[in-house]
Amino acid sequence: MKHGARNQITGTVTEIKKGGVMCQVKVDTKAGNISSVMTLESLDSMGLKKGDQVSVLIKAVNTILVKE
Amino acid sequence: MKHGARNQITGTVTEIKKGGVMCQVKVDTKAGNISSVMTLESLDSMGLKKGDQVSVLIKAVNTILVKE
Amino acid sequence: MKHGARNQITGTVTEIKKGGVMCQVKVDTKAGNISSVMTLESLDSMGLKKGDQVSVLIKAVNTILVKE
Amino acid sequence: MKHGARNQITGTVTEIKKGGVMCQVKVDTKAGNISSVMTLESLDSMGLKKGDQVSVLIKAVNTILVKE
Amino acid sequence: MKHGARNQITGTVTEIKKGGVMCQVKVDTKAGNISSVMTLESLDSMGLKKGDQVSVLIKAVNTILVKE
Amino acid sequence: MKHGARNQITGTVTEIKKGGVMCQVKVDTKAGNISSVMTLESLDSMGLKKGDQVSVLIKAVNTILVKE
Repeated sequence: MKHGARNQITGTVTEIKKGGVMCQVKVDTKAGNISSVMTLESLDSMGLKKGDQVSVLIKAVNTILVKE
Repeated sequence: MKHGARNQITGTVTEIKKGGVMCQVKVDTKAGNISSVMTLESLDSMGLKKGDQVSVLIKAVNTILVKE
Repeated sequence: MKHGARNQITGTVTEIKKGGVMCQVKVDTKAGNISSVMTLESLDSMGLKKGDQVSVLIKAVNTILVKE
Repeated sequence: MKHGARNQITGTVTEIKKGGVMCQVKVDTKAGNISSVMTLESLDSMGLKKGDQVSVLIKAVNTILVKE
Repeated sequence: MKHGARNQITGTVTEIKKGGVMCQVKVDTKAGNISSVMTLESLDSMGLKKGDQVSVLIKAVNTILVKE
Repeated sequence: MKHGARNQITGTVTEIKKGGVMCQVKVDTKAGNISSVMTLESLDSMGLKKGDQVSVLIKAVNTILVKE
């Protein structure tokens, strides 16, 4: 599978917090903990659970650089 | 400075590619190379250059998880 | 602190509505009320509360122009 | 016309910068200058030009709050 | 009304799921079911309900292409 | 491959326009023509060309509903 997102970070799902419509999935990566928010429906259709290996895709336009 | 982006990855600017209106900035991080696209004007107002230490901010809603 | 978001609007936090995973923060600005949605965790890590002075960052790619 | 973007700021187009595929449109508003990036094709199909009155739509999830 | 989003898909609202702050609106289109997430407040201010005819706007930068 | 984007529309690449850093890819789908903007580097790493079958992924939070 090839995709048009410039950034891809692999990791392991460590926690899933569910709200009424959305959920927050935490992924342990080499760059530390990364959180992803998606709909509960997407979570269900992926069958995502703790321990799963995943890739985090991030389009380059969806990042903001900060310089101290 | 505190911000409302859940994800923050630090790194060093390694390359800047300029287009007519936008530019692509590459940042070397623990999670590999991360690209950020912004306007040339933002690049100029930040005074960003190769070797700068930066943080890459990513909102949790702007990530997509993929499971093979 | 310098950042790569082209748009920055300052204001005062007037209301915080909490959901199960996300929250909505309202900011009173010169351009009227602006709402920001973030995770509850980001809200907590910022320690955000009513009356706080904040800046609203918006990347230029995340706006849509409409002409009547 | 009703839309599902929580934030709407009105203003006047003051400048249009064109690149190869994208363009940057500057809008003078009560909250200062706001930049919007879109495709050249969207610019053409809108027939946008300097002096036009426009609304800037911004979804609440596409904002990042910063507290100094 | 003219807008700066390159993609527009029309359809009919078939379901609305409400959370604490956000909601998910499902729209039946020629391309199948499309889900949109917005704040409950935007839902209310639009007065959106099942059976409504709507357009789904999507900026070109907010899509990711995938090739198997 | 399973992904956390709620919306997926399949189609055929019909045109690729290149700028200095970004490009615009047009995809013919059941819902009409859909444009996707990505970096030239992502285009190259995907090896995308006219006639390719692709899926367009769109997160539910990245859509805006409009009611006339």
